Amino acid sequence: MRLSRFFLPILRETPKEAEIVSHRLMLRAGMIRQESAGIYAWLPLGLKVLNKVNAIVREEQNRSGAVELLMPTIQSADLWRESGRYDAYGKEMLRIQDRHEREMLFGPTNEEMITEIFRGYVRSYKDLPLNLYHIQWKFRDEVRPRFGVMRSREFLMKDAYSFDIDQAGARHSYNRMFVAYLRTFARMGLKAIPMKADTGPIGGDLSHEFIILASTGESEVFCHKDYLDFDIPAVETDFDSVPGLQGIVDKWTSLYAATSEMHDATAFDGLSEDKKVSARGIEVGHIFYFGTKYSKPMGAKVMGPDGQEHEVHMGSYGIGPSRLIAAIIEASHDENGIIWPEAVAPFDVALLNLKVGDAATDEACGKLYRELTAAGRDVLYDDRDERPGGKFATADLIGIPWQVVIGPKGLAEGKVELKHRATGEREVLPLGDVVARLTAARA
Amino acid sequence: MRLSRFFLPILRETPKEAEIVSHRLMLRAGMIRQESAGIYAWLPLGLKVLNKVNAIVREEQNRSGAVELLMPTIQSADLWRESGRYDAYGKEMLRIQDRHEREMLFGPTNEEMITEIFRGYVRSYKDLPLNLYHIQWKFRDEVRPRFGVMRSREFLMKDAYSFDIDQAGARHSYNRMFVAYLRTFARMGLKAIPMKADTGPIGGDLSHEFIILASTGESEVFCHKDYLDFDIPAVETDFDSVPGLQGIVDKWTSLYAATSEMHDATAFDGLSEDKKVSARGIEVGHIFYFGTKYSKPMGAKVMGPDGQEHEVHMGSYGIGPSRLIAAIIEASHDENGIIWPEAVAPFDVALLNLKVGDAATDEACGKLYRELTAAGRDVLYDDRDERPGGKFATADLIGIPWQVVIGPKGLAEGKVELKHRATGEREVLPLGDVVARLTAARA
Repeated sequence: MRLSRFFLPILRETPKEAEIVSHRLMLRAGMIRQESAGIYAWLPLGLKVLNKVNAIVREEQNRSGAVELLMPTIQSADLWRESGRYDAYGKEMLRIQDRHEREMLFGPTNEEMITEIFRGYVRSYKDLPLNLYHIQWKFRDEVRPRFGVMRSREFLMKDAYSFDIDQAGARHSYNRMFVAYLRTFARMGLKAIPMKADTGPIGGDLSHEFIILASTGESEVFCHKDYLDFDIPAVETDFDSVPGLQGIVDKWTSLYAATSEMHDATAFDGLSEDKKVSARGIEVGHIFYFGTKYSKPMGAKVMGPDGQEHEVHMGSYGIGPSRLIAAIIEASHDENGIIWPEAVAPFDVALLNLKVGDAATDEACGKLYRELTAAGRDVLYDDRDERPGGKFATADLIGIPWQVVIGPKGLAEGKVELKHRATGEREVLPLGDVVARLTAARA
Repeated sequence: MRLSRFFLPILRETPKEAEIVSHRLMLRAGMIRQESAGIYAWLPLGLKVLNKVNAIVREEQNRSGAVELLMPTIQSADLWRESGRYDAYGKEMLRIQDRHEREMLFGPTNEEMITEIFRGYVRSYKDLPLNLYHIQWKFRDEVRPRFGVMRSREFLMKDAYSFDIDQAGARHSYNRMFVAYLRTFARMGLKAIPMKADTGPIGGDLSHEFIILASTGESEVFCHKDYLDFDIPAVETDFDSVPGLQGIVDKWTSLYAATSEMHDATAFDGLSEDKKVSARGIEVGHIFYFGTKYSKPMGAKVMGPDGQEHEVHMGSYGIGPSRLIAAIIEASHDENGIIWPEAVAPFDVALLNLKVGDAATDEACGKLYRELTAAGRDVLYDDRDERPGGKFATADLIGIPWQVVIGPKGLAEGKVELKHRATGEREVLPLGDVVARLTAARA
């Protein structure tokens, strides 16, 4: 993409309303714009990151066996009356009357609707297990939205819902999501640690939050240091293997890890000092097993192998891609701007033409732009007639992993500069080596 | 995808509520489910088609120079008061009060919001032309939603908005979209004819509807027969060439074409009899140039090369991907079900195992499934333990372009059957030839 044809409205000044670094950087880098309190437009750079995050979430959901559909944003109040949550949900639910004065709402989550879809079609245990997910905009009318997309009112959520004939089956479905989440966050360059979570009125011990450590995190968390070095389950993981997945989950729940709500100071104190991690954390995912909480009142049953009807056992599994992007920035930035992990970077390479209008520089940049693009790299070519200082600052601010800097002086010797955003390392190399260098960097 | 792991809730009976064929077939094929009046969930098969349609729309928007962003669904009423449309819009607008009793709405379109974004950042003619688009869910509270996703309340729309310094620039932006639309619909296997449309209170002559001909179409249309054989602009079309694009648009507007509202019987009667086409049509896209209608009241101005401020000239350009899918089905089906054009088919190939449990058949199917998938074909493998008749009916109903039928009898001679859904042609060929045959079919 040529920057002259893109829409990248960089802000020079730090917006006063932004309290946390991710919010400040997303506004400054032209990723988002607030349209109402807690409601944001995703500008082109932000949308590119959102799509990258969604693609990883989707790949790992699919790999684990979940099937994607797409439920609407507007739901009927009657559906929520069936589960008893319409009155219980309170003011966070955005309630709406349509022109016929029917009570509707903007979905804050989809347990009721997915249960309605399930009971509309599925009759037999033979059609289980089933895990259906969607990635759709939700609305929660926070009384005081803040921190940009970290706590917004309209937000994107991937929510998956599993259906099983019994608790043992549901346990395996839960484990599939547990492992899928480990892989999802690791692929985005995050160290996410599953922590036992409060299940609230639902009960049971099957609920985990996935927490990443970031000094600017919203809450205090406590965990065993060894988690930070655990291997992530491989791409070849067999999601159909019950003992295989249980082994992974057992390992990842064997050591101490808790958010402040679930913290057990005595247990934590039992760890040796060099293994204690007490830090700030950001929740990036949450998984629940809740049994027949919705299937019972809503009548979602299947015929079992025993010829009897069984209420299905369900779980739900959430990741907020819009929020996750803020979390990634909280975990990965410096004083100059964002530092994107390569897997979610909006572009792979920023190509900076230091002297637009100089024939040799334009030609070298144009050629390299075409070659890198042909090699499958997503390049943002800064072809604007602007001073080098502004180009350097923009490239650092928007955090593209690699910067290629081309100016007439270096070019006279056939040289260009390559800068790695994360480490700040620079190297001067022959123009002809750049494509091979940046293709190797990916592998 | 193995069908045993997919979620494809086929209906055996034709739903009574569906009045038109696309609605019936989408319900029967397990593509959509109604959740409230005019509000649908997109089940996995439907979502796959929606994603294919979106991908083509997006590619052609990008090729024409438009830049994608994503605006939120919920908008502030104040924004619409600036343009004067808040009161004018009437009951089709879904109006909402949030917990603080602020007036909000679920966006039916985004002219106001995009103008607000534009004026927030763009100051100079040097940043023009600019065309920003998004693909987002909209809501129009139809008094009587019907025809499934053809006229629903919550629907997906691609809406693009162009900004230019003057009318000449805006004309070129309009032409870019005109040509992009011709390519978009043609790639989906549709013959879409641009017809002069009523611009309503806006005036001017720059508005076209893109209409496809289908015997079940919603309205009567009239056009010159030669349009049906016009060449579609090539992929190499230079979207920066002002005379080049104008030449294409002139050609595509040179002959008679009108919807019933704009029909001029006298002009139409002047055509020779063998060139008169009078048929039913479905609107699949609509483009408008409306000058300074929004930029003037909302103060969207840029500094021109003359040092003066100019209100920008705008246009908007819509395609409804959800509606488009119903239109494609109206134009392409038979008594057995849907016939997907290859470019938007949910899968490329349906692989039917006629005897699940037979070792040789299972092995041959499994191997072919892996090979076709490795060759880049998207395969739905019917590995369910069901009778052949049910598998044939399902494959025809969901309209996958190619069916590969494998049973023990043919396999004993090393043969399988290949059926082309659109023509009904069948051929028997060696198992080992299938991959080459289906890869060639694509090229």
